[in-house]
Amino acid sequence: MPGTASGVFIGDEWYAVAASAELGPRPLARTALGVDLVLYRTAAGAAVVLRDRCPHRSAPLSMGEVDGDAIVCPYHGMHFGPDGRCARVPGQARIPPGASVRSFPVLERYGLVFAWLGEAARADPALLHAISAYGDPAWGTSRGYHHFRASYLNILDNLVDPAHTTFVHRRTIGNAAAAEVAIEAVEDGDLVRVGRWVDDAPPVPIVQRFAAPRGNVDRWQFYFLKVPSVSWVDFGAFDTGIAHTPEAQARAPYRVLSYAFLTPETAASTHYFWFQLRNIAVDDPAVTAEFEALYRATFDEDKALLEAVQRVEEREPGVAPVRIASDAGVARLRRIIARRLAGEAPPGER
Amino acid sequence: MPGTASGVFIGDEWYAVAASAELGPRPLARTALGVDLVLYRTAAGAAVVLRDRCPHRSAPLSMGEVDGDAIVCPYHGMHFGPDGRCARVPGQARIPPGASVRSFPVLERYGLVFAWLGEAARADPALLHAISAYGDPAWGTSRGYHHFRASYLNILDNLVDPAHTTFVHRRTIGNAAAAEVAIEAVEDGDLVRVGRWVDDAPPVPIVQRFAAPRGNVDRWQFYFLKVPSVSWVDFGAFDTGIAHTPEAQARAPYRVLSYAFLTPETAASTHYFWFQLRNIAVDDPAVTAEFEALYRATFDEDKALLEAVQRVEEREPGVAPVRIASDAGVARLRRIIARRLAGEAPPGER
Amino acid sequence: MPGTASGVFIGDEWYAVAASAELGPRPLARTALGVDLVLYRTAAGAAVVLRDRCPHRSAPLSMGEVDGDAIVCPYHGMHFGPDGRCARVPGQARIPPGASVRSFPVLERYGLVFAWLGEAARADPALLHAISAYGDPAWGTSRGYHHFRASYLNILDNLVDPAHTTFVHRRTIGNAAAAEVAIEAVEDGDLVRVGRWVDDAPPVPIVQRFAAPRGNVDRWQFYFLKVPSVSWVDFGAFDTGIAHTPEAQARAPYRVLSYAFLTPETAASTHYFWFQLRNIAVDDPAVTAEFEALYRATFDEDKALLEAVQRVEEREPGVAPVRIASDAGVARLRRIIARRLAGEAPPGER
Repeated sequence: MPGTASGVFIGDEWYAVAASAELGPRPLARTALGVDLVLYRTAAGAAVVLRDRCPHRSAPLSMGEVDGDAIVCPYHGMHFGPDGRCARVPGQARIPPGASVRSFPVLERYGLVFAWLGEAARADPALLHAISAYGDPAWGTSRGYHHFRASYLNILDNLVDPAHTTFVHRRTIGNAAAAEVAIEAVEDGDLVRVGRWVDDAPPVPIVQRFAAPRGNVDRWQFYFLKVPSVSWVDFGAFDTGIAHTPEAQARAPYRVLSYAFLTPETAASTHYFWFQLRNIAVDDPAVTAEFEALYRATFDEDKALLEAVQRVEEREPGVAPVRIASDAGVARLRRIIARRLAGEAPPGER
Repeated sequence: MPGTASGVFIGDEWYAVAASAELGPRPLARTALGVDLVLYRTAAGAAVVLRDRCPHRSAPLSMGEVDGDAIVCPYHGMHFGPDGRCARVPGQARIPPGASVRSFPVLERYGLVFAWLGEAARADPALLHAISAYGDPAWGTSRGYHHFRASYLNILDNLVDPAHTTFVHRRTIGNAAAAEVAIEAVEDGDLVRVGRWVDDAPPVPIVQRFAAPRGNVDRWQFYFLKVPSVSWVDFGAFDTGIAHTPEAQARAPYRVLSYAFLTPETAASTHYFWFQLRNIAVDDPAVTAEFEALYRATFDEDKALLEAVQRVEEREPGVAPVRIASDAGVARLRRIIARRLAGEAPPGER
Repeated sequence: MPGTASGVFIGDEWYAVAASAELGPRPLARTALGVDLVLYRTAAGAAVVLRDRCPHRSAPLSMGEVDGDAIVCPYHGMHFGPDGRCARVPGQARIPPGASVRSFPVLERYGLVFAWLGEAARADPALLHAISAYGDPAWGTSRGYHHFRASYLNILDNLVDPAHTTFVHRRTIGNAAAAEVAIEAVEDGDLVRVGRWVDDAPPVPIVQRFAAPRGNVDRWQFYFLKVPSVSWVDFGAFDTGIAHTPEAQARAPYRVLSYAFLTPETAASTHYFWFQLRNIAVDDPAVTAEFEALYRATFDEDKALLEAVQRVEEREPGVAPVRIASDAGVARLRRIIARRLAGEAPPGER
């Protein structure tokens, strides 16, 4: 696979490859798992994901145009349908054998287009992580996208590592006090959960502002990572004294679920599609804009740091890291990655 | 040879390395076939082509100055003459043995400077393609230059492939109807000819405008490629009913010969020197400007596409292409290239 | 060592890594001998040089902040002291074994920060070249810095090669007449000296202007290179007839010592810290500015040429040079480099 380290990607997974809003009348070029893709919509609006290389003379199909359900090569006008098969060769009646491009299974959900770049037979839509709150009018949504010039592995580390928040995000969401509180890491199949409850404490400003609790609150902050591609942070608070049950969390006056979908672009770069669901001020566009600005600034901080780490690692690869106590989640996630990589075939011949 | 794939270039050939107008009082740096060259004119105006590397401390001679017939190294002032031999070392009387740079045979014709980078003994001026119309006052000239970040092989493909015109050039010279008309490909030594006659049809707008025929015309469009470096398109029209003879073509009221001289710069980039000869409005500078703008826009379209193909091929080399009917000329040209590459020594030690 | 050719650097040497004025409250990232370094000052103002890579997750410490005597990692807040040992890990009491970065011996002198990147046990401050005139109020100082995208070896060549002055610096300090005068090259341990006396000649304009001699002068110009990192040019003049003794030179009405400290950044780039000491107009800021502008322009000329040579050598490495008479100093210096490289261990494990 060009531009990628062999065996570095988990292919059998639904990966977000575009925001739904990106797919208009023009084809879109996008790279995922080192594979150059072209995305387009058929006349009926269905998203299509094909390899972005005409089998005739290697022109990128993404430089061509959409004609009904087909994409048309910009060089000699060959038509390829959603299944990747050539449907027309101008100037001749016969379609040459082998005139097709690989087509990938597609799902569109959560305002995102997902593709399955591994073994097509295993592309079960039920494997896409379910988010019941998405689309529920009880929740407001903010969203955005970041490109990281960094390996997805280092970004995953970051997502099960609350300890970095104090230092990397002290200008945005960090909190000096949090640095010294013990944090639990739990592993469950391909899921890693890291987090804690902070009980009987004054509400943090954002909770105070939107939920206006009477006194002290119990608040939770849990980081979930479904390896290798879905991350979410569940943050909320309710009055101190209420039992810590899922039902009580569901009724909490303040709760934010912050999702990120990660897709390795190459071994050294990653797409990062994110959105938040909030149960406060759900229809207020000003609050949506405020959330988007806050999370954009926060992820910019991660981006600056992780891109610097990437450059350091590229200059001198293969240095074994010293580990510290807050790496519990990282150790678990790396074990899951190794297990997934060992247990499946590579993303497949193209 | 630095920067080049071994065996990828045909050395024994006159290659255009500069427009005559580029060679003024300052030396010119240019790379051809992966070899860094310096070009300059002697006091008498003769073009000289030498390797652009002083044998003393590797300074590029192109950063130096011309002194009479010699070029002077910018570092220590060593003089090299048109034959590449060191003629002077400041501060010492003796010229060290080995103090010379390789000099290349040169020809200046058609407003271009040609160099022979292969075996010097075979550099016969008669091997340069003859263009009798060039300089004839019955023909007007337009000209220009394009740099392609693309292998010369893919550009050559394009030059014996009229089928691409419909799709790549639909904003300039393309014609939807042409896509479905059969085209003949003929091979003759190192020459490939592809094209056709379209008989008894209304004149295309440009013919109508300049030749004002009484009724329908027969028009021809033939693509010639003298492998590996000279391409021309012969396009013209005359009244329907006239016999298709070379003499009749020579007397046609509208005819344009569009020439391109290709020189591989590296394995992945190409110099493209072009000019048109036209038998209409030969002295009209407005028509010259119009032709230059039209061909510039047309070659810009080729450039955008072929540079994209180059990037695709570099990301994943060695993919065998599917072939279609319009590839007849391409197949012939690739055979000729293989024959030329097999039948001669590499461009030579430097 | 990343980014460097093995064995290409002499490690046991005091190398200038920053101007003192560059080290303020923020850490400074700098690469020397292919090693990424972070420089900072302790609360007491002492310069510290550490490797710029946290042993935990490879973040560059230079993106962090200084806290008292320590530098704080931007990722998880680990503290490292001037000795490179981790002094604190937020969230845990135990410091993991191996949690340290390499620390390098430091000296600050001549307005520069020097680091010893080789074997620390050999880092004797007495090995730093002594400059008695520096800081003496009888001398005025001008200074600057150049970055060269060129191997330090080619820059060293240039510094024992007065012959290049005529050609490279003819717009600044060059002199056509000098090209043909014989020059002596002397080797003494790690020192190469190249230069000459020009006796009983009219004073050059700058000497005329500042020293106003009565008639002809004897002037000297000697290039010293203490391999591999210190270069100086001793230029001065006094009335013809005075004996050529060090004492007479010390009393000369015009004398300039132009120093350069070279530090390989990578195998293909070099830091070049320079200053001049002059015994005329020592307190005149206009003359300081004039000197700085003159030397900046002169080194810009060297930079343009040496960067071009670097590009030529990279395109086709391993070409053996033709030698000329003025290469006497170069031959000596290359012998010393070979001796130093052979006689010591590489810069050391990191």
